[in-house]
Amino acid sequence: MDSTKSTDEAAVNIAASKSAKGKAPTTNNVITKATPNPHGGTKRGVAIFDFVLRICALVAALAATITMGTTDQTLPFFTQFFQFQASYDDLPTFTFFVVANAIASGYLVLSLPFSIVCIVRPHAAGARLLLLIFDTVLVAFTTAAAASSAAIVYLAHNGNSNTNWFAICQQYGDFCQQVSGAVVASFIASVIFIFLVLLSAVALRRH
Amino acid sequence: MDSTKSTDEAAVNIAASKSAKGKAPTTNNVITKATPNPHGGTKRGVAIFDFVLRICALVAALAATITMGTTDQTLPFFTQFFQFQASYDDLPTFTFFVVANAIASGYLVLSLPFSIVCIVRPHAAGARLLLLIFDTVLVAFTTAAAASSAAIVYLAHNGNSNTNWFAICQQYGDFCQQVSGAVVASFIASVIFIFLVLLSAVALRRH
Repeated sequence: MDSTKSTDEAAVNIAASKSAKGKAPTTNNVITKATPNPHGGTKRGVAIFDFVLRICALVAALAATITMGTTDQTLPFFTQFFQFQASYDDLPTFTFFVVANAIASGYLVLSLPFSIVCIVRPHAAGARLLLLIFDTVLVAFTTAAAASSAAIVYLAHNGNSNTNWFAICQQYGDFCQQVSGAVVASFIASVIFIFLVLLSAVALRRH
Repeated sequence: MDSTKSTDEAAVNIAASKSAKGKAPTTNNVITKATPNPHGGTKRGVAIFDFVLRICALVAALAATITMGTTDQTLPFFTQFFQFQASYDDLPTFTFFVVANAIASGYLVLSLPFSIVCIVRPHAAGARLLLLIFDTVLVAFTTAAAASSAAIVYLAHNGNSNTNWFAICQQYGDFCQQVSGAVVASFIASVIFIFLVLLSAVALRRH
């Protein structure tokens, strides 16, 4: 009985010291909550939406990278000298596309912790500004990848009679289909990046 | 037991000093609103820089549009059936380039009054947010135009042996040179747009 009491006392002591220790970080929070801040809830909502959008963009960018990176079509006939084969690294633009979308995926993974910081501390304007700067650069980056590949895909589908560039999609149908899908995924990623920039701007404004 | 108490006291002291420190920024906010804003000067400087950058972007976008729009090269020899001639509308991507850069130029002209509003009233967050939204869309737009044309120009310079697309720049040297210049001008415009977005974000943050 006595020993139980002493452990009880110890527990209380620990709790007391814990609450004393815990005061240091929480005091800040208390002050934050003491001053009426009506925008806290909205900001947290925006931050959570930002996190969800970031995961969507990650899925789109990864899908674009993998779809483009695995394009490889071999035609079922061949001549004496070579076999007809098409893969993404036949065209430098498609190689750039894979690299750019892989970089975008990597950036999105690295940005997730910062997005979580913005959820936990909705008033951390520094993290938000950092995300906005990099998101803006990534808008340009993913759009450049998607647009340049779209120009080449268009050429592959339709050819151009003025320059004597012939359409190759009659022969490499599967290749063209896969590449077109990757371009669409990359455009989706870049549109999501635009929304991320706008979200960050709105969150910064309500500061 | 005594030592626990002393740490408790220390913790409380730290908490007290923290709360005293924590008050400093909130008092600042109150002062900020009472006295004429100390950030007003910085914001006005940012707004003037924004205006200057906008004019630079306008010059770059107009240069890109006009350079691309006036490309027209006729080769000095011709066959019985047709004359060899290259102009921007032989390739749909270049037509898109001209349209996109013309739209960007038009937007930049229309945005100048809003930029002036931001100089006159540095705290008008609405106008600034509006500019930021459209600037972000225009980043994607001009980058898409520049990147897709860059992909085609690269092809025109180097050709691609895998797809049997031959380089046309041996014949149409002047055409290729003019088109490359236009692409560079468009890339400059899109970089300036990125800076405009970042400037607006910084200005919104200091609100």
